[in-house]
Amino acid sequence: MAVELKDLTKADENYSQWYNDLVVKSGLAENSAVRGCMVIKPYGYAIWEKMHEVLDGMFKETGHQNAYFPLFIPKSFFSKEAHHVEGFAKECAVVTHYRLKNDPEGKGIVVDPDAKLEEELIVRPTSETIIWNTYRNWINSYRDLPILCNQWANVVRWEMRTRLFLRTAEFLWQEGHTAHETREEAIEEATRMINVYKKFAEEWMCLPVIVGHKSPNERFAGAEDTLTIEALMQDGKALQSGTSHFLGQNFAKAFDVKFANREGKLEYVWATSWGVSTRLMGALIMAHSDNNGLVIPPKLAPVQVVLIPIYKGEEQLAAARERLNAIADGMRAAGLRVKIDDRDNVRAGFKFAEYELKGVPVRLALGQRDLENGTIELVRRDTLEKETVPQEGIVERVTGLMDEIQHNIFRKALEYRDSMITKVDTWDEFVDVLENKGGFISAHWDGTVETEVAIKEATKATIRCIPLDAEEEEGKCVFTGKPSHRRVLFARSY
Amino acid sequence: MAVELKDLTKADENYSQWYNDLVVKSGLAENSAVRGCMVIKPYGYAIWEKMHEVLDGMFKETGHQNAYFPLFIPKSFFSKEAHHVEGFAKECAVVTHYRLKNDPEGKGIVVDPDAKLEEELIVRPTSETIIWNTYRNWINSYRDLPILCNQWANVVRWEMRTRLFLRTAEFLWQEGHTAHETREEAIEEATRMINVYKKFAEEWMCLPVIVGHKSPNERFAGAEDTLTIEALMQDGKALQSGTSHFLGQNFAKAFDVKFANREGKLEYVWATSWGVSTRLMGALIMAHSDNNGLVIPPKLAPVQVVLIPIYKGEEQLAAARERLNAIADGMRAAGLRVKIDDRDNVRAGFKFAEYELKGVPVRLALGQRDLENGTIELVRRDTLEKETVPQEGIVERVTGLMDEIQHNIFRKALEYRDSMITKVDTWDEFVDVLENKGGFISAHWDGTVETEVAIKEATKATIRCIPLDAEEEEGKCVFTGKPSHRRVLFARSY
Repeated sequence: MAVELKDLTKADENYSQWYNDLVVKSGLAENSAVRGCMVIKPYGYAIWEKMHEVLDGMFKETGHQNAYFPLFIPKSFFSKEAHHVEGFAKECAVVTHYRLKNDPEGKGIVVDPDAKLEEELIVRPTSETIIWNTYRNWINSYRDLPILCNQWANVVRWEMRTRLFLRTAEFLWQEGHTAHETREEAIEEATRMINVYKKFAEEWMCLPVIVGHKSPNERFAGAEDTLTIEALMQDGKALQSGTSHFLGQNFAKAFDVKFANREGKLEYVWATSWGVSTRLMGALIMAHSDNNGLVIPPKLAPVQVVLIPIYKGEEQLAAARERLNAIADGMRAAGLRVKIDDRDNVRAGFKFAEYELKGVPVRLALGQRDLENGTIELVRRDTLEKETVPQEGIVERVTGLMDEIQHNIFRKALEYRDSMITKVDTWDEFVDVLENKGGFISAHWDGTVETEVAIKEATKATIRCIPLDAEEEEGKCVFTGKPSHRRVLFARSY
Repeated sequence: MAVELKDLTKADENYSQWYNDLVVKSGLAENSAVRGCMVIKPYGYAIWEKMHEVLDGMFKETGHQNAYFPLFIPKSFFSKEAHHVEGFAKECAVVTHYRLKNDPEGKGIVVDPDAKLEEELIVRPTSETIIWNTYRNWINSYRDLPILCNQWANVVRWEMRTRLFLRTAEFLWQEGHTAHETREEAIEEATRMINVYKKFAEEWMCLPVIVGHKSPNERFAGAEDTLTIEALMQDGKALQSGTSHFLGQNFAKAFDVKFANREGKLEYVWATSWGVSTRLMGALIMAHSDNNGLVIPPKLAPVQVVLIPIYKGEEQLAAARERLNAIADGMRAAGLRVKIDDRDNVRAGFKFAEYELKGVPVRLALGQRDLENGTIELVRRDTLEKETVPQEGIVERVTGLMDEIQHNIFRKALEYRDSMITKVDTWDEFVDVLENKGGFISAHWDGTVETEVAIKEATKATIRCIPLDAEEEEGKCVFTGKPSHRRVLFARSY
């Protein structure tokens, strides 16, 4: 299908439409026939797959194993943890029947009223309840601890307003669920995993993030503490990119999971859970892309280098192909992910635009003069800089460029992010920065839920996090003037 | 948790209970709180993960890409392909509502009657319908073909009688869905993929399989031809282990998917689909295990070698540990998956039994005399042969053993399978073999659905397949005496 670049909305004209255009036209994903559910297309899935692979490796290095728990959760499970029910059991897909039958009136198929479930099943919005119900049978003594499980799965939350990758009714994610002997060990685990997410976001996605605690109002339903990584998008809005929860003994109590400790006494188990989802795809796209299309960090790019022949007629094509094949072989041997595009039904200019749209980090074009001169044209996607370079040493040069581009994309995002953290000490400033600049606002807050809610109602800004590295600093709440001991980060967010 | 080996049912006493005991006690999987849905435990998931990884590589080598399609399918989609509706839209999970609310009477939560979906959603039992509805927008001309997509996903079929891995309401699988220009190309694809499955079953799972066509009565609902790989379990029953379907233009017609061919004329697209599931785990377990537990082929074993110290007191343990660590390091460097079990709260004999139960291919035990003599005790799981061997060269020896064990498990399964294919020419013989020997019965069949159904009703045996390599041979149908041109394979099956 033809890529119609002319239809790509400009980011500064309509950021939201630019994002949607990018996702659809670059072939990452599209809406499906089912409201709120997306189709992740091969190009998008290839990036997610790479994320999955890298994260999975990081989980295993930190001692975790994968397992798989049921898609369905009995309705009654949601009532067992008091806070969890408020946060999770509401907007969700409910299975009430288990059979269809031919319509007696001959109009297709209908739900068989005789096949009604005794207890409705909920399509998991998250799996704490079913997993802690299972852990009860796995845990007897401290010797059975810790349990360090992760699950890669689909989950469903019946969101009213959906956006590809950022907020969809069904999405893919991983959810880690761990069980521990002590409070300290569980807190250590929750901290370890938010740092794994930070490392992944920064080193693989080129996404600088701030690690911090959620305020009580923004905490996960059922958690004692929620750690988050918060990223900044190019429109100045924040995006929560991953969370790690210290669940205390809440789920152990709700599902009666006790263990005999080292003194032989029965005690409730301590828990964490942590997850990232296909939402990371949204963060990746929004953080780096431009009006020409996606900018994919080399480490996650399904195609890192595309090679395109410029030619007239079969003979020139054959010569260019031969040279490009040799170059591609060398690059593959060096571990680069390479594609040659020698389609003869579209012009080279069309291909250039297409790979810019798809965010391929490096493009090489080989014309007849290059063949004669032993040169090749090289264009970096991140800077769009073009230069003609010798074919000799091209593998080393491009390999080096991968690192350079990876660092450059991160550096650019970091500079932008840092320029968008504004210290504010008065309410007028707060409103002014929010309206005219955006980004994170570092301000004092009196620590109450009432103030947080009032600020949200007044401005749509929420506390994104209380940064882990927030320094003690006496000040006055930007909204109430009451005393505060440290600054927190506010922002409007996705 | 303690493994209670004494409770493992013997295969010859109760094969079905033996299987269930094995799955549960070896830690592969267990039933969940949701009827028919299993929990795949870390040890079971590690094997599935390996299968996933290897198959995924084979799919990519044959040109396929992964994508992801929605979990839910609008009910009306199932009515669009006439045969498909009969086969698939019946026993399935139906989502009718999208919200819960607090019970007005204060008794937990209830389904919100105001949140009823206009059209019910079916949890996918297979994805042909939603995928072909999507492909309509992806395909305009022959230049958009072929589409070679695969999806790793969970699916749900509301089975009444469930057994861990073999038949569960929810299971994990991959489903390939391809779109082609011509009938020939689609048939070639369906054949290619059944051969990929055969290669995987034989080379990785040590599972000899027979490739053949399904009879019309056993075909996939909506297919023009279904290819299958059929394996034989140790109780003489067959197990369908993977299928690949040539779907003709059935789904293209149902979802109006046309393309402009090379002559510029509009034509319906040709389709295939193919899948294997966590059912393969059931096949793996039933094909090779014995009364001591699982026998896992080395290529799929999460742990290939376990090292166990035999000692009295801390000092001996420290010495054994040091030596075992050195050996394990050498093995890991050689690419072996190794575990040292130096738990001090269970006896060595208990550990031996546990790793036999878990099917670890090679067990090494190091005692004090071994430390002095530079030897180590080696036990193969497949033969249970025990020998004392030099520590020197142990890495090479065990590496070689991996291949040897892999081949031996396959050879044993192949010999058994081949001994269980019986040529039969009369109905009396047919019944006799079925009742007293089991296995595959190679017999003539008159080619009609009526006869196939009559035989099934009389004996519970079905046509497992018409082998691809079946030779032309004139004969008489074993049931009706009518003429037949080739033998087919009957068996009772899972």
